Amino acid sequence: MNDAEDDVLIAPPEPGEVGLVEAHDFVHSHPFAFESGQVLPGFTLRYETYGRLDAARDNTIVICHALSGDHHCAGIHALTDRKPGWWNNFIGPGKAVDTNRFFVLCANVLGGCQGSSGPLSIDPVTGRPFGLAFPFVTVRDMVRAQKLLCDHLGLSSLYAVVGGSMGGMQVLQWGIEYPAFVRRLIPLATTARESAQAIAFNEVGRQAIMQDPEWHHGDYAGSGGPHVGLAIARMMAHITYLSDQSMDQKFGRRKTAGAAAAPSRKPDVAGHAFPPAAPATSAAYTFDVQFEVESYLRHQGESFINRFDANSYLYITRALDHFDLAAAYGSLEQAFAAVEAETLCVAFTSDWLFPPAQNREFVLALLRTGKRASYAELTTSLGHDSFLLESEELYALVRGFLTR
Amino acid sequence: MNDAEDDVLIAPPEPGEVGLVEAHDFVHSHPFAFESGQVLPGFTLRYETYGRLDAARDNTIVICHALSGDHHCAGIHALTDRKPGWWNNFIGPGKAVDTNRFFVLCANVLGGCQGSSGPLSIDPVTGRPFGLAFPFVTVRDMVRAQKLLCDHLGLSSLYAVVGGSMGGMQVLQWGIEYPAFVRRLIPLATTARESAQAIAFNEVGRQAIMQDPEWHHGDYAGSGGPHVGLAIARMMAHITYLSDQSMDQKFGRRKTAGAAAAPSRKPDVAGHAFPPAAPATSAAYTFDVQFEVESYLRHQGESFINRFDANSYLYITRALDHFDLAAAYGSLEQAFAAVEAETLCVAFTSDWLFPPAQNREFVLALLRTGKRASYAELTTSLGHDSFLLESEELYALVRGFLTR
Repeated sequence: MNDAEDDVLIAPPEPGEVGLVEAHDFVHSHPFAFESGQVLPGFTLRYETYGRLDAARDNTIVICHALSGDHHCAGIHALTDRKPGWWNNFIGPGKAVDTNRFFVLCANVLGGCQGSSGPLSIDPVTGRPFGLAFPFVTVRDMVRAQKLLCDHLGLSSLYAVVGGSMGGMQVLQWGIEYPAFVRRLIPLATTARESAQAIAFNEVGRQAIMQDPEWHHGDYAGSGGPHVGLAIARMMAHITYLSDQSMDQKFGRRKTAGAAAAPSRKPDVAGHAFPPAAPATSAAYTFDVQFEVESYLRHQGESFINRFDANSYLYITRALDHFDLAAAYGSLEQAFAAVEAETLCVAFTSDWLFPPAQNREFVLALLRTGKRASYAELTTSLGHDSFLLESEELYALVRGFLTR
Repeated sequence: MNDAEDDVLIAPPEPGEVGLVEAHDFVHSHPFAFESGQVLPGFTLRYETYGRLDAARDNTIVICHALSGDHHCAGIHALTDRKPGWWNNFIGPGKAVDTNRFFVLCANVLGGCQGSSGPLSIDPVTGRPFGLAFPFVTVRDMVRAQKLLCDHLGLSSLYAVVGGSMGGMQVLQWGIEYPAFVRRLIPLATTARESAQAIAFNEVGRQAIMQDPEWHHGDYAGSGGPHVGLAIARMMAHITYLSDQSMDQKFGRRKTAGAAAAPSRKPDVAGHAFPPAAPATSAAYTFDVQFEVESYLRHQGESFINRFDANSYLYITRALDHFDLAAAYGSLEQAFAAVEAETLCVAFTSDWLFPPAQNREFVLALLRTGKRASYAELTTSLGHDSFLLESEELYALVRGFLTR
């Protein structure tokens, strides 16, 4: 895109930054059979790339995003962008995923809502968004669609596949499905099977959406859509990405500026008289925002409705629920039998959504199956989101694994 | 009540069971000033008692209930009752709280919806339920109202106060507020300050209720009320009462009878052809209930709306949010300075809502303040609800503490 190139000349990217990037659309115009048995005549994946593909076309690192992520994982789209891509701390020239050396590829998942085909896409039959007529999506469907994109780009093999959370599930699926194509797997903060607790949280979020009177069985084009339900789903899910400790550090019980503190007390040792009644302190007692953590969560919910589609949220959480490699292949050992790639798994002690034990479980199965696999457990206080945050420890592990 | 007595003659209670019980109303007809500064001309507490008050009137054990509990903690109201009171395993003749020896008293909290004054009560001014016109309630207000009930019953002192979760907060407040009146405190699975994470979950639940179009700013008498929001709040909260491990043991990834399994897979080593497309397996891919854990949660949500008032849920979760003894009294040491009772605190390793560290925190403060306090940590897999469940270990600790 000439504009972007011009901009680069005017304001070159900071050293170490990916800088200005743009998204592309891969349009696959052949029938695509979903694992559910449903078929679409084709699909689109929106993707970004950073760095240069080398002559052997074998230096690609695929980045797989999590539930609420997208293809824009590094760099900026415009010089006025307030924030770079979601994994910009991890990807760039000289960073853990070094774009001086690697060609980095990240696509919005099938079923997503950031440009790839999903329930928000227009159904050519009706001229309206698919809604619930979109086929059910699995993690395997997501990976199969990404493989077609890799073929389209003429890649001979993948140097590595990297992702956390649902991204980590895709990483495992890549290693299983295309063993000869993938050389290194880096699953982070993930699992080989969605747990009952994780399914439970997904289900509450879906109910919040589907019980919202604005959902209309998924057919809400033209109306506002189930914004309230989606915001509530996001608020709840966001708690599961943090930790008790990090929320205490970040917010504690701090009140917002508008909230008055309750008057302090003296124990009523006599046991009868009430202390002098405080004035009717409506600012201290209200169901409006009083605590900073409430304000933060409401903001998370409200900003999510501007960038995410409620039906996509249903589809992708259902894909998570269905993820169970042992059930799909008979056992983890059978699932991993053909894997050729070497694996580095990193888990985080404060992650209670996909806790260390769930990560260790599949690493042990890889080892039992005779595969090369390492496991590292980083001590953090930041919960599941630890994999996304600045961590020299994580960078060093990934750099070491990618250069050996 | 003669009917009940007749029934007892026909079918005497099982040995070791409290048997048939009935609730009573304590009507306090004097102005009651809430901590918020708001005043009601009076209030009602619904309560039950088991066992006999002795001549010295000093053998009472007060039971304090949690967020969704009530005054009916043991025995049955009718021979046809399917379930006894919520702590029937813990309270009864020869049980941990021995009704052969103690007079047990449990009241529905102020702000509740099971017969005590709360937002569901009729406002004499309007002839309609108070709704949001009901005064804000704190844990201290709950305890002060219970003290007035104790005075009404002519109790000279309390042998002990026992409760878990929000009940444990009341236990601590009892010891602080009426130090000369209470001889033993048994707080279980609780905290001296609601954490940011716990406030966050409460806030999501409140938003689910308050954003339900049927909430009508709390004025939903005559209409159905915010059933959807209340059910969603309950589903989410219920997850926080369990544990990852217990949900895996109880439900795992088991499908409901109606849900078909997805067909099992073979890795697609060639990397191109799709496996034979399964028939459009709508039973395997749906947003309806597929997993047992979903079915269980939906049942929890649906049954809750039949027994709980949405406004009460707002009031009581807000009381939890406001609970912070250190902030209210300047420090935990100042809060506990006047405490005369001896304390036994029991925490549970799998409780992540009020985890062991939050329990240890106030026990350490009691010890630093020179009080008699013991702490026991039971290894369980059942999460926060562990305090409610059968546990010979818990019973033995409580029995030992109550008999020394």
